[in-house]
Amino acid sequence: MTHEHTLHLDPKVRQEARNRLLSAKGHLEGILKMLEGEPYCVDVLKQIKAVQGALDKVGDMVLKSHLEHHVASAAVRGDTQQMVEELMEVLKYR
Amino acid sequence: MTHEHTLHLDPKVRQEARNRLLSAKGHLEGILKMLEGEPYCVDVLKQIKAVQGALDKVGDMVLKSHLEHHVASAAVRGDTQQMVEELMEVLKYR
Amino acid sequence: MTHEHTLHLDPKVRQEARNRLLSAKGHLEGILKMLEGEPYCVDVLKQIKAVQGALDKVGDMVLKSHLEHHVASAAVRGDTQQMVEELMEVLKYR
Amino acid sequence: MTHEHTLHLDPKVRQEARNRLLSAKGHLEGILKMLEGEPYCVDVLKQIKAVQGALDKVGDMVLKSHLEHHVASAAVRGDTQQMVEELMEVLKYR
Repeated sequence: MTHEHTLHLDPKVRQEARNRLLSAKGHLEGILKMLEGEPYCVDVLKQIKAVQGALDKVGDMVLKSHLEHHVASAAVRGDTQQMVEELMEVLKYR
Repeated sequence: MTHEHTLHLDPKVRQEARNRLLSAKGHLEGILKMLEGEPYCVDVLKQIKAVQGALDKVGDMVLKSHLEHHVASAAVRGDTQQMVEELMEVLKYR
Repeated sequence: MTHEHTLHLDPKVRQEARNRLLSAKGHLEGILKMLEGEPYCVDVLKQIKAVQGALDKVGDMVLKSHLEHHVASAAVRGDTQQMVEELMEVLKYR
Repeated sequence: MTHEHTLHLDPKVRQEARNRLLSAKGHLEGILKMLEGEPYCVDVLKQIKAVQGALDKVGDMVLKSHLEHHVASAAVRGDTQQMVEELMEVLKYR
């Protein structure tokens, strides 16, 4: 897709996404440490869920930025069909 | 909760969970690397979704093991109410 | 599966589930009425989401009752494998 | 919001959505009938999940139409912020 090289993620959102993913990585490392011991299943499930929640938030940030900066102007660029199809694909089973 | 110290995650499942979480961590590091460049939003969303899918699988493994080894025998131990309530809590918004 | 004929949904939960499903059906009829006019897309999405939320609640009630009355006693009956497998199947993509 | 009165759901999508919702309503009535007897919990859960799947499909149709016909042209109309915010709200916890 030709637009991939021009429709970049907004730099401010990109920085914030990095910070949040670094924190999610730290959280994941915590679960790995936990699994060196003998954790209770439900505690592991809770921690996995917390990381999922953090990833959801990063995804929402990126999605919002994409809608604002790229999808909302699709009619101007003339790539509406492509933008909508790839977005529907990525929203599936969300 | 007193049972937390006795109802440990099955060692085989724990090992498999560790392997999968290590792989998810590697994937997350790949997204962080991606964000040092100028990625397309939808590519970032796809990668986040892939990590979520990997975490879902780890969660499913742990959940299945918990149901088999701990929830299915709750009536024998006499802690059904507690087991069910904490499970419903962790399944919420899954 | 032979147990299907003996492990019935608890009567009190069944009655509450019926009431909630009747209300969800009323809500669905409201969306159908809405679609006879010229609604705004986002208003339709909000209403569909509200019905989904109501169905989630019914599902949670039935699931909780099933865990309490049937899954927690699986070890006693000796059908743990079957109970866990069918439960994991129904929880998938929840 | 002033745009609500002009950005109507596309008539073809609206008709298809009606047909699918009528079918979901029939399915819901089937579950209600099921609950007059003594169903097995997991069978009820499966049927609820099927209705949810049908509603997901209607939601996806409406969402796709909204993205194509309204969100993609937001920059032209000048209501990007409003369109994106209400969309993010409706996508939350999807």
